Amino acid sequence: MTPSARAKPSSTVGNGRVGRDPYDLETVLEIAVSAFNDFGYDATSMGLLAERLGTSKSAVYYHVTGKEDLLRLALDRALGSLENVLTLPGATNGDPVERLRFVVRAAVAVLVADLPYVTVLLRVRGNTAIERDALRRRREFDHQVAQLVDQGVSAGAVRSDVDSGTITRLLFGMVNSIVDWYKPGKGLTVDQLADDVIAVAFDGLIVSPHS
Amino acid sequence: MTPSARAKPSSTVGNGRVGRDPYDLETVLEIAVSAFNDFGYDATSMGLLAERLGTSKSAVYYHVTGKEDLLRLALDRALGSLENVLTLPGATNGDPVERLRFVVRAAVAVLVADLPYVTVLLRVRGNTAIERDALRRRREFDHQVAQLVDQGVSAGAVRSDVDSGTITRLLFGMVNSIVDWYKPGKGLTVDQLADDVIAVAFDGLIVSPHS
Repeated sequence: MTPSARAKPSSTVGNGRVGRDPYDLETVLEIAVSAFNDFGYDATSMGLLAERLGTSKSAVYYHVTGKEDLLRLALDRALGSLENVLTLPGATNGDPVERLRFVVRAAVAVLVADLPYVTVLLRVRGNTAIERDALRRRREFDHQVAQLVDQGVSAGAVRSDVDSGTITRLLFGMVNSIVDWYKPGKGLTVDQLADDVIAVAFDGLIVSPHS
Repeated sequence: MTPSARAKPSSTVGNGRVGRDPYDLETVLEIAVSAFNDFGYDATSMGLLAERLGTSKSAVYYHVTGKEDLLRLALDRALGSLENVLTLPGATNGDPVERLRFVVRAAVAVLVADLPYVTVLLRVRGNTAIERDALRRRREFDHQVAQLVDQGVSAGAVRSDVDSGTITRLLFGMVNSIVDWYKPGKGLTVDQLADDVIAVAFDGLIVSPHS
């Protein structure tokens, strides 16, 4: 959400070059993420990435030790942005339902801003240590959101007839579905999209007497 | 939903043998679907399937011309079950909101009954003609649900401040997320799961004055 949460991967690995020539890490990562989403991680090879970049495999290996590195960077970007949401004042101070609304709005913004990265994250199956670590971080994120839901239940504001873990999963099922159908720049703006998600998830799709 | 909607694939291709030895088509399909979900379709080879079945590639080719056949069968099972929901009396007769509730409940039951098949469907990217045909059938399903939502809006029962297409996508985003987290036989029964989805999607997660 904040610019600091979107540190360029070149600050963590690689040779620290800046700029966007076809050989910088940011471009390699972008192409890798797009290939992971098009063909799946397992079916993507370093050779395919080199081909898509119009360069040699050795040029790709200049930045990373293998596609595992690129997966780790992609997952870390998506997870870092989502985890950052939970540290913002809107998520930590005030009424639990308002905090939950803030988290959903900010998560929608992250999903749209980092759409291909979050798509990679949401398709992780847990086949490797890197993937299992990402799943662990996702579970921790869900756990923190579920605690917020619990606080809402205790305050009498969130329904208590559905388990708070189930509410959290359904809420984020709705939020995460955005990566499958939302087209940035067409139709809804990010703010309208967040408004719609919050309206349907918090108040339901039927007309309620208090709306 | 009905037994007739779950015709064994052996009735459509293969040699029509019945029974469940390691070489029947149903078993081959089951193993293929599990491999598609574990590794992705592109990364799954006929050799891998033969290995998982403990048999030879030629034994697998006895039933199908290639993994495309298995993908087509898997997608057809998931889509056939979902499409069938929309033809049932509960989906075609009566009040639009009741019909929508019925469709959601029946779709949840299909997702749970055909969990690995629907998981394959939801991960389709559109890389091949078979996948694009599946996406076309999914869009048609969504379109028919959106029409039901529209009828609910016209009847004054479904909220009109959110586009009906968006409502449909968010609703099915919630429903489809089940494949990522629901464990059949643990915790919630299918009926409880459907109740929870309907409660949260239709009435919202916050406590409403009329609940």
